This record gives sequence, C-alpha cells and structure tokens, in this order.
Amino acid sequence: MSNSFGELFRITTWGESHGGGVGVVLDGCPPRLALTEADIQPDLDRRRPGQSKIVTPRNESDTIRILSGTFEGKTLGTPISMMVQNQDQRSEAYTEMATKFRPSHADFTYVAKYGIRNWQGGGRTSARETIGRVAAGAIAKKLLRERFGVEIVSYVKQVYDIVAEVDQATVTLAQVDSNIVRCPDTDSAERMIALIEDIRSRGDSVGGIVETVVRGVPAGWGEPVFDRLEADLAKAMLSLPASKGFDIGSGFGGVLMTGLQHNDAIRSAANRVFTKTNRSGGIVGGISNGEPIYFRVPFKPVATVMHEQETVNTDFENTTLKGRGRHDPCVLPRAVPMVDAMTALVLIDHALRHHAQCGT
Amino acid sequence: MSNSFGELFRITTWGESHGGGVGVVLDGCPPRLALTEADIQPDLDRRRPGQSKIVTPRNESDTIRILSGTFEGKTLGTPISMMVQNQDQRSEAYTEMATKFRPSHADFTYVAKYGIRNWQGGGRTSARETIGRVAAGAIAKKLLRERFGVEIVSYVKQVYDIVAEVDQATVTLAQVDSNIVRCPDTDSAERMIALIEDIRSRGDSVGGIVETVVRGVPAGWGEPVFDRLEADLAKAMLSLPASKGFDIGSGFGGVLMTGLQHNDAIRSAANRVFTKTNRSGGIVGGISNGEPIYFRVPFKPVATVMHEQETVNTDFENTTLKGRGRHDPCVLPRAVPMVDAMTALVLIDHALRHHAQCGT
Amino acid sequence: MSNSFGELFRITTWGESHGGGVGVVLDGCPPRLALTEADIQPDLDRRRPGQSKIVTPRNESDTIRILSGTFEGKTLGTPISMMVQNQDQRSEAYTEMATKFRPSHADFTYVAKYGIRNWQGGGRTSARETIGRVAAGAIAKKLLRERFGVEIVSYVKQVYDIVAEVDQATVTLAQVDSNIVRCPDTDSAERMIALIEDIRSRGDSVGGIVETVVRGVPAGWGEPVFDRLEADLAKAMLSLPASKGFDIGSGFGGVLMTGLQHNDAIRSAANRVFTKTNRSGGIVGGISNGEPIYFRVPFKPVATVMHEQETVNTDFENTTLKGRGRHDPCVLPRAVPMVDAMTALVLIDHALRHHAQCGT
Amino acid sequence: MSNSFGELFRITTWGESHGGGVGVVLDGCPPRLALTEADIQPDLDRRRPGQSKIVTPRNESDTIRILSGTFEGKTLGTPISMMVQNQDQRSEAYTEMATKFRPSHADFTYVAKYGIRNWQGGGRTSARETIGRVAAGAIAKKLLRERFGVEIVSYVKQVYDIVAEVDQATVTLAQVDSNIVRCPDTDSAERMIALIEDIRSRGDSVGGIVETVVRGVPAGWGEPVFDRLEADLAKAMLSLPASKGFDIGSGFGGVLMTGLQHNDAIRSAANRVFTKTNRSGGIVGGISNGEPIYFRVPFKPVATVMHEQETVNTDFENTTLKGRGRHDPCVLPRAVPMVDAMTALVLIDHALRHHAQCGT
Repeated sequence: MSNSFGELFRITTWGESHGGGVGVVLDGCPPRLALTEADIQPDLDRRRPGQSKIVTPRNESDTIRILSGTFEGKTLGTPISMMVQNQDQRSEAYTEMATKFRPSHADFTYVAKYGIRNWQGGGRTSARETIGRVAAGAIAKKLLRERFGVEIVSYVKQVYDIVAEVDQATVTLAQVDSNIVRCPDTDSAERMIALIEDIRSRGDSVGGIVETVVRGVPAGWGEPVFDRLEADLAKAMLSLPASKGFDIGSGFGGVLMTGLQHNDAIRSAANRVFTKTNRSGGIVGGISNGEPIYFRVPFKPVATVMHEQETVNTDFENTTLKGRGRHDPCVLPRAVPMVDAMTALVLIDHALRHHAQCGT
Repeated sequence: MSNSFGELFRITTWGESHGGGVGVVLDGCPPRLALTEADIQPDLDRRRPGQSKIVTPRNESDTIRILSGTFEGKTLGTPISMMVQNQDQRSEAYTEMATKFRPSHADFTYVAKYGIRNWQGGGRTSARETIGRVAAGAIAKKLLRERFGVEIVSYVKQVYDIVAEVDQATVTLAQVDSNIVRCPDTDSAERMIALIEDIRSRGDSVGGIVETVVRGVPAGWGEPVFDRLEADLAKAMLSLPASKGFDIGSGFGGVLMTGLQHNDAIRSAANRVFTKTNRSGGIVGGISNGEPIYFRVPFKPVATVMHEQETVNTDFENTTLKGRGRHDPCVLPRAVPMVDAMTALVLIDHALRHHAQCGT
Repeated sequence: MSNSFGELFRITTWGESHGGGVGVVLDGCPPRLALTEADIQPDLDRRRPGQSKIVTPRNESDTIRILSGTFEGKTLGTPISMMVQNQDQRSEAYTEMATKFRPSHADFTYVAKYGIRNWQGGGRTSARETIGRVAAGAIAKKLLRERFGVEIVSYVKQVYDIVAEVDQATVTLAQVDSNIVRCPDTDSAERMIALIEDIRSRGDSVGGIVETVVRGVPAGWGEPVFDRLEADLAKAMLSLPASKGFDIGSGFGGVLMTGLQHNDAIRSAANRVFTKTNRSGGIVGGISNGEPIYFRVPFKPVATVMHEQETVNTDFENTTLKGRGRHDPCVLPRAVPMVDAMTALVLIDHALRHHAQCGT
Repeated sequence: MSNSFGELFRITTWGESHGGGVGVVLDGCPPRLALTEADIQPDLDRRRPGQSKIVTPRNESDTIRILSGTFEGKTLGTPISMMVQNQDQRSEAYTEMATKFRPSHADFTYVAKYGIRNWQGGGRTSARETIGRVAAGAIAKKLLRERFGVEIVSYVKQVYDIVAEVDQATVTLAQVDSNIVRCPDTDSAERMIALIEDIRSRGDSVGGIVETVVRGVPAGWGEPVFDRLEADLAKAMLSLPASKGFDIGSGFGGVLMTGLQHNDAIRSAANRVFTKTNRSGGIVGGISNGEPIYFRVPFKPVATVMHEQETVNTDFENTTLKGRGRHDPCVLPRAVPMVDAMTALVLIDHALRHHAQCGT
C-alpha cells in the first residue's frame, strides 16, 4: 500500500508489465495550466525501451492518453488521469519465470510479501511502472519552468569506471541528449557506449551514476524536520528501480574535509545573498538556499544477464535459471528521465507546500 | 509543516534548543507493551551532549518524562507524549548569532523560508530536536526486539580518513559502546579519538560515516513502489542533521561490478531461502528478503568552528563571524543513537504496514 | 486536491462527466482475494442511470474494466485500477450551461475556486464520479463479507413526507431491491414511486433519507479520537453529492431523552456482552461495540428542475436559466448503492487499521 | 492511531484524564503570527469544568503553557506544543470503575479494542482531551479573523425540548456568553437553565443541539470530491464526545421541500454574486459560495447519571453500577467552545489548502 507520492502534488501510479496498461492519477495540479499530450510524450519517448542499441529492445510506442482533468487544453484542478496501454504481450518468453525466482530481482520478495505475484515480465516490479512517474513529472517540470523558473538537468555521470567531466553551471538538456547514453561529455560518452556494447555482447550488464543539477530554485523550499528537501529527494531516488544510494553536495566525499574546509562562506552582492562554494549542494538544514542543487544516484547493473545462475524455484528447491529474451545491458540512459521526473515531483510538491504555510 | 514521521507508528517532534523543552508525541504504538522511562533513558544518555571529551560540552541531563499513553507500566494504545526540559539557557553566548548567519548552518535558510528564526542555539535546527526521535526510537527498538526478534547495530565506520574494519555478522552493541567514539574496531577507535582530539585542539571539526546492520528482519517488509524499505530508510537518514547521503548494500561501490558479479545467487537449505552474497543489502525491489540489512550514512564535519569566517548579517551586509562557546569537534559518536532510532522507526512502521495489508 | 479516501484501503477517483471516462485506483487491497469484473458490475448496475422510470434517463451501460492489480482472477496486493468509459457525449444539450451557473449546482463555486470549469454535464461534480466509489466499494463489501462476516443494507427510509417502516434486524438486500425506489416497506414504496412520478410530471424533484444498517461488525473497530468510526462515516456520507447531513443511533432525536432514558444497559449472556437497547447505534466513544450500526443520511431534492430560475451568467450579470434535457426527479434510488459503497470503504479501512495497531 | 486532525494546519492531541497532563502539538501554523498564552486562555476558560452551576464541578484552572514554536511573542513556523497539567487526581472516586463498565461510556469498547484501559476518569475518553483542540482552535480562530476576516459564532440552539430563536445574521459572541448556558435567546436561556438545574437535582442529564454560523468565508474553500468542506465539518463534529449527528443548511428538514422550493436563486449586485436564500448553508458541491455557513450538531445526554444501572464487570458478569461523585447534567455549555474550535480548525486548514493549489 504505497503507490502514491507527494503531499500536495500527489501522484498514484498503477499497472503491471502485462495487463491492461500502466498509468497515473495526479491530484493537486494547479488549475489553468495549458496541457495536452504533446507536453508529456517527449519525456516518455526519452524513457521508452527500444530507443537505441544500448537499451532494452522491448518495442512499445508508449503513447500517453489524458483521460481526465483537462478541458479545452487547460488543467481543471481536478485529477489528471493518464494511461499507456501495454502492447508487447509475449508472456511466453517468461514461462520459466513462473516457477523460478530470478536472482536479484524482486520475484522472491513479492511472493514472501504477498503470497502471489504476476510473473509476466516482472509484473508490478517492471520499469514500466515508471511511465506514470515520467508522465506526471513532465507536468511538474512544466509548472516549475513556467511558474518558478526552475530547470532540471540530469545526465549520466559514470558508467562502470568511466567518469564524465561535466560543468554543472552550464550543462544543458541538448548536450545530454546529444548522444544515446545521455552523457554530456562526448568523449566519455563514446567510451561509455563502446563499453555497454561490449558488455551486451557478453550477455552481461553494467551500472553507473546519474547526476542531477537543478538551477533556479529560490531560497526557502523544504520542510524541516522530516521532509527536508534532501530527505524527500533521497526517498524519491531510492524509490526508483535499481538505485542503491544518494548523496548531495559534498556527499560521501565530504567526510575527507574538515569543517573549516567544508563550510560555504556566505557573501552578499547586488542585493543577493550567495555562497562562495556550494558544498551544501544548494540545501542547508533541509531548506534550499538559492544555490544550484546537485546530487548523485548510483544504479546497480541490471539483474537480468544471459547466463545460467543459481536460484530456487517456487517450491524452494535449488535450481538454475538462464536469462533469455530481451537483454538490457545498461539502465542508465533510461534512468535519466526517471531521475528528472522524480526530482520535479519533489520540487513542485515542496513549492506548493512552502506556499501554503509561508505564503499567506 | 513536517514534523511527523511514519504512517502507522507515527511520531511528531517539537521543541527548540531554548524554550520550554523538546519532546515527541508517538501515535500508533500497540497496546500492552511494558514501558517506563527506564526503557528510554539509556538511549537518551547515548545521545546527550557532554558524555565524553570528544563531543559537545553542553551539559544537560536530558531526563525523559512520559506524560501520557501508559497506565500501570503498560502502553494504552493512546498517544505517548514524552518530554525533556531544556536546562542550559546561556543564550547570551549566542547574541552575535542574533544578527549574523552562521556559515553552513540553517540560519539564513530559516529566515528565507519563515521570515523569522529563534537564533538561540539554533532554535529548531538544534540537534536537540533529535531527542524526541531517540525517545520514540527506543520504544520502536523494544517492539522490534520483543515482538519480531529484530536487532539494530549502528557504529562509526569512518572518521575523516580512518576506516574501521567491522564484521557485520557479529558486531554487538557492547562492542560499539566499548569506547567513546562508538567504533567497534578498537584499533581504529583509538586513532579516531586521537584525530578528533587533535581537530578539537585546532578549533576545527571532522565528519565521517555511520554504518548500520539490522539482523532478523523477516522477508516481506517494505511497500513498493514508493515506500520501498530502502527509500524510507534513505529519507530517515537524510532527515538527520548534518547527513549528506545514504547507500545500501553494494551502494556507490556496486557500479564497479557487472551484473554477473553483482547478482546474489539464491539458495535453499533446511527449509530456508537465502542468498550466497548480500550485495542487495537485505532488500530487493523495496522488500526485505530475510538477509541482514546494512547501509551507510555520511555526516559532514560540524559547521561550528572556532575560526573567523565570512558571512552576512541580517541586513544582508558582508561581515565575519567567529564561532565561540561550545565546540563539538565530531558529531559521529552522538549520531550513532540517532541512526539507530530512525532505523527502528522505519522498520516498526513497515512491520505494522505489512501486517495491515498482508496479515489479514 | 482531495480525490483520495481511506488510510489503508485507499481509493483515488478521477474523471469528469464528459471526457475519456471515469475511474478509480484502489491501493491497499489485501492480496489473494478472488476478484473479477463480475464482482463489481452488479453494484454499478444498481447505481447507473436509466435503470427505471423514476431516475435520470441518461443511458449508459457503465461497463467496468479492471486494468491492473489482479492476476489469474486474484488480487496481487498492487493497485487495482478500474475504469468506465463515457459514452453519452451529448454536450450540445449543455451549451447554455457554458455561460450560466445552474442554481444550487456547483457551477459557480467551481469557477470561484479554480477559475475554470468543465461545463459539460457538470464535469467533475457529476454523480458519475461516484462510479469509482461504487466499484471500489464492491471490493470492500466482498472483503467485509468473506473475511469479517459483515453485512451492509442501505435502503430508502423516506421520500419527501413518506416514511417507511423497516425492521433493521431483518431487512435484506433482496427486500430493498424488490422495487425500483429501493424501499423495503412495499406499501410505502408504492406511494413513494407514485409521488416521484407525479413530481417528475411537474418538472420538479424531491429528496429524502437513506438509512443504513450494518450487522456483524465486531467490537473494536474505530480510531479515537479523530477517526472515530462515526466521524469517518459522517465524512463519507457528507462527501456524497446532494447529502445534507448524518445522524447515528438516537441521532437528532436523542436530544428528547434524558440520560437515564438514553443509556444502553449492558448485559452478558452465553459469553457475549450486548446492550439491551441500541441508542448508541453500535458505536461508543468512536469504537464499535458489537451491536448493529445504523445511521441516516438526508439527500436534498435534485437541483435540476424543468423551470425557469434566477441566476447569473459567467459575466456575473443577472439572467435566468431553465433546466432542459434529462430530468432526474429523485436521487434516492441511486443514492442507496453509493451509501452502501462509502459505508463499506469506511469499515474495511477501519478493520485494517484496527488490525495494524492492535493485532500484532 | 488517529490523534491528528487536519492536513496543512495539523494538530495532534495527547493525554488522559489522569496522568501528567493533556496537550497538543500544532504543526503548520504560518510564521510571524503574534501569539502568547493570553490568546488561548480565554477559550480554555469557556471550556473548563466548574465555571457555572450547570456544568460538571471538577475544578481545575486548566492553565495553558506554550512550550515551543514561538519566539519573542511570534510564531516561528515550527511546531507549537501546548500543555495543561492535570490537577484533580481524585482517582479514589473511580475505584468501582476499575472493575465495571459504565453504560454508554466507552469503557467496554476501549477494552474490546486495546485489551487495556485507564479507568481513572475515563482516561483518553475524557472530555479533557478536547483541551488540546480548543487551544489549537484559538490559534485557528485568530488566523481566520486577522488574515481572512472570518467570524465563527456557536451557541446552544436547543436543550431537551426548548428551542431558541436566534438570528444567524446578527448573533454575537457577547450575546452567547451573556448567560451560563450560552444561548443568545435570553428567554429560552432562562428556561434551559431552570430545566438543567431540575435535571441535576434528579441526578439525571439532558442533551441538545449546538448551532454554528460562520460569516466571512470567501467563495472557493473546500476540496472536492472527498474533502468537501461540509464533509470535513461533519467529521470534525462527529469526532467530539457525545455528538450524534450533523446537518448543514436545510439539512434533514430539506427533504420536505421540492427542488423548485429548495434551490437558492443566484443574483448579482454591486459586483457581488449572492443567493436570495441560503438553503445550501453556504457550501455548494463541497465548496464555499460566500454566503454564511451554518450547521447543527446534536449532543446526547451525558451518560453519567446518579442512578443504579445495569452493566457488566470486567469478568463479563452481570452487575449494576451507580454513578457517584461529580455530575455533569448538561454538556452543551461546554460543547460550544469545542464546536467553535473544530470549526476553526477545519476552516483554516481549507484556507491553506485552497491557497496551496489555487493560489500560485
């Protein structure tokens, strides 16, 4: 019971990999925002499988349909229901999955929890679930951009051991999307692509790190003490499939500095307060300080590999299972729009929450 | 507006550093649990300032009082209100703070958000706020231990560049508390203490990493897709003052493995399903799998240092500020019980939530 | 922002009268419940327009489709998304509504709130919104019946000044559905039907009272102090279109008794505690006591009447508006399944909540 | 688990009749509101026992203390914790209650739910719990008055069969408080007081109806479809001890009108839209329309009477119990400030919620 996210800009996602479709209901969107499917489809196209040679070949158009909440091209303030129909129904590719648990997939844990699972394509654990997040995130991004001037740029910072050089102050979405791995450092991008192709040819997979920078957030967003802005970002990121962590600003690396080195000096100029460095990552005490927000999310290598692996069957007997069918060697390129979406959902929710308490 | 945490085992903390006191209301505690202040005070004693030479010298006994929710030594199922009175009221030590923002503290961001702040001792941003969390966490730990057999052990894994060796399978609370830095690796502990004393003598501060291992969680806890167990743990940890990140299982390091290397083979023996490795960190797809849960939380160096630093005043003019008065060179030893408490609060909440949906 | 209801068995409804359809996402349904559309359609058929000569003639089949959350005929524990497509798209019948506010409809208040409205058929204020409630309520009723032995019977107690005689201890669903007005007192039912036909012939409308009795609720459900069982029932009922009140047990009439007359004597026999009278209505102090729960809900006469009425247009100029097109002389027969559904949603939610805190 | 109320202006009450005290934590109060105990104590004085000859003689000063959330007389935006210590600890008066369930009190249902109860003075079911509500309500009323121009006037409309005549358009708080029964119709008030004194002399009790009028609410507050303004008011009222119902506008009486009679004609004059009648009670479709909001709440007669009554003991054996000690013949005068408080809490919460979604 937890398929909703957000307090005031609240989404509820639904759907399994196979079945009628996947979708989302967004409750709390401000009224009178211009909105049609054309605002949303581009983000889904960034997320969909089959878009390049280095991601999963499952081929679905993932065409979004807005079922409610708009009228004559504008939001009504009522719930926005959106849906994508499932097309690829090759459940025969999964028959072995009906009786065996895939290692490092959630097959076993779903049975442990619910006593039942939809074994077709992972059911609810499929990354298709993120379609609803990305669709709602597109609306969140539009609101953030148009009403608050906030810009979110996520990109692949690292694949396996290849680390990109990226200037957070200037990186653009166009740079990110200039190549299929979504890394704005074109030299690193080429090496990442080559690495992923090699990994795919060996039936294996790799992970990496997505980094996000958010520019334009005003000082004041975030709700201490529990819904600190970084706490909600952390939760959002760890709710994404295959993510294993989160750090913000100096993050794990900050432990190698002393307080004197780490503190961000505060300065004032031209009626604006700013910090000389930004080790805080744009958030202090749970509240944005007006500096860019940046954070990193590591994704583990995709669990499905084309090799025989030890596992147990649904009778809890030891056996082996070999991945077959579609092979996704690296989730990173498709994780980028998911991270964008979750970031936007957290930020717009906090914008509305801040407004509610402090804007009256 | 966000001083509550948890869905079914729900705490609401209140209180500023200076003022009537700090406290917590716990709603949703199961009835008929034996409970007195003696169950709670030891955890507060682990958290309180002044307990050793390497932490802040603010000296308060932090004596907890249960104001409601128990009767004849047992919980009633009604809200448990607990409170600690503030004693140390040396607000004169803070007068300069009334007009200047401390760098990398939340002084500026609170003003940006609320247009007002209690500048005495940090007000709501003081670590005293965590007293309520630790008190409620003590109750959560007792429930987890007695009703579910769950054991939580947090410890200092790293201070600055000193990394401890700890065996997660065997580490005990007694080992953790065998020294004042709360690092169960006694050799590393000695070096950490020496480092912190040196840092203190220079008026500076250091951070580090707290690691937690949880043993005994059954398979099945966690609420995909948004309240995955690791997502709620991440939020809980990032809600702690000075924390800058979170990773679980293989975490950031997992990106340097391929899928074939990273996957945890599943095996069965003696009617028990287990994994040969535990790179998942005890959680797969947001749900516990019965293996130990372990994760890491980096804490930045304490922002208060005894040096002149650049900042602005409340009129947004450039100035400088030198920390004076109490000096806390390292938050790590006192962060350990905070991490314990937040871990317990997440786990008991998920235990109840799992029970609610799947236990009927 | 409030299209969700329930804490643990949580529904989110969506949809306008005209547009893609109407639907609901149910989050928190226990897993492994046998469930297909056949469990739900009968309740929707009780709710749908056009089912008899005394309700609105809008003619739609309201065929429900389960889009997610079940597998091989059983619930998965994941969100259950259900939807009904809109068919009747005669928006031309509403063109005058585009520029004029219907008296005692929510046209003006939606504009006052959102600055925009879907004027086609009432948009979100249409009773079509309750389709999602009734669909989810059917699942709640099944759970209550099969897992807890709880039976809910709502019926028309009063239309205008015709008051039915109903024996709460024995009234059955079959008796309720034995006539088109859904009043188990057949004599009164005939008079009610005649009255409604007469009212319809005059282009007018009438209201009345729905009464509900719930048998089989065990002692212990309800969450004081704010989510008392009667408080959540009251909210549920007042959330229905056209309802104007709620009372439980002795209700408004109880003020004409003294305490000595009103108190329910408690007795014990054959290991069962019961009360000799039931003025409490089955709930004491917010918690069920094991006696039947009964309450009443008044519904105002439908606002759409076939007469010229004073109103203002969207430029806030005085004008008149005459209802035309479909005419619903009495909402009561269709309100019965709505009240059933909301009652079931409240009860199952409280069953799970009670289980969560007190069942461990 | 449900001691919190409100979404954005959220209170959590705690405390039993006997024990450390009773209190409330208010989360979400806007910052920079002038606030001291002097703003709150008058409302508590209206609620406290012993204030006149016709209410319970329990004599406590109920002195409120603000423990957090304010600084130099202004709210900080952080949680406001408030508390009243319990003084009257005559638990010996209750020893028989330890082993017997009082009829129509919640003694039995608390045991049925929690398996334990605090039998001293009713424990959590005591009306002392409402102290926290009234304290927080005082803050809500101040915000409503100062920032929105909203005025709430509740009064005793009926005691037993004595019905007061009150002009909703003009009734004032001064009129309400001009007599001890809090009925602004002085003739009726005299008769009510005489009736209550007679009832008290006979060791019995009576109930009645509190009516509330709210003037100054702008059009636009309320959150369809589930958190309609009237739905949240209904829940708030039914959450009060001894209340048995709620109706708004025409309410139960509205069923005796046809639609043509019942509809409120809409008119416009001097740039203001209004209705000629107000059978809607100021709310249409769940949203305020700018007209006065008015509703009624029936309270049953107090369950404690000074007569022998049938009941069972904690071993579920038949026995009798005679009320002794303090005797409260009529809850109505003290219910008035409770209704005021709950009304204010609902309205301010909706004001903030409306602002959050529609004010950006």
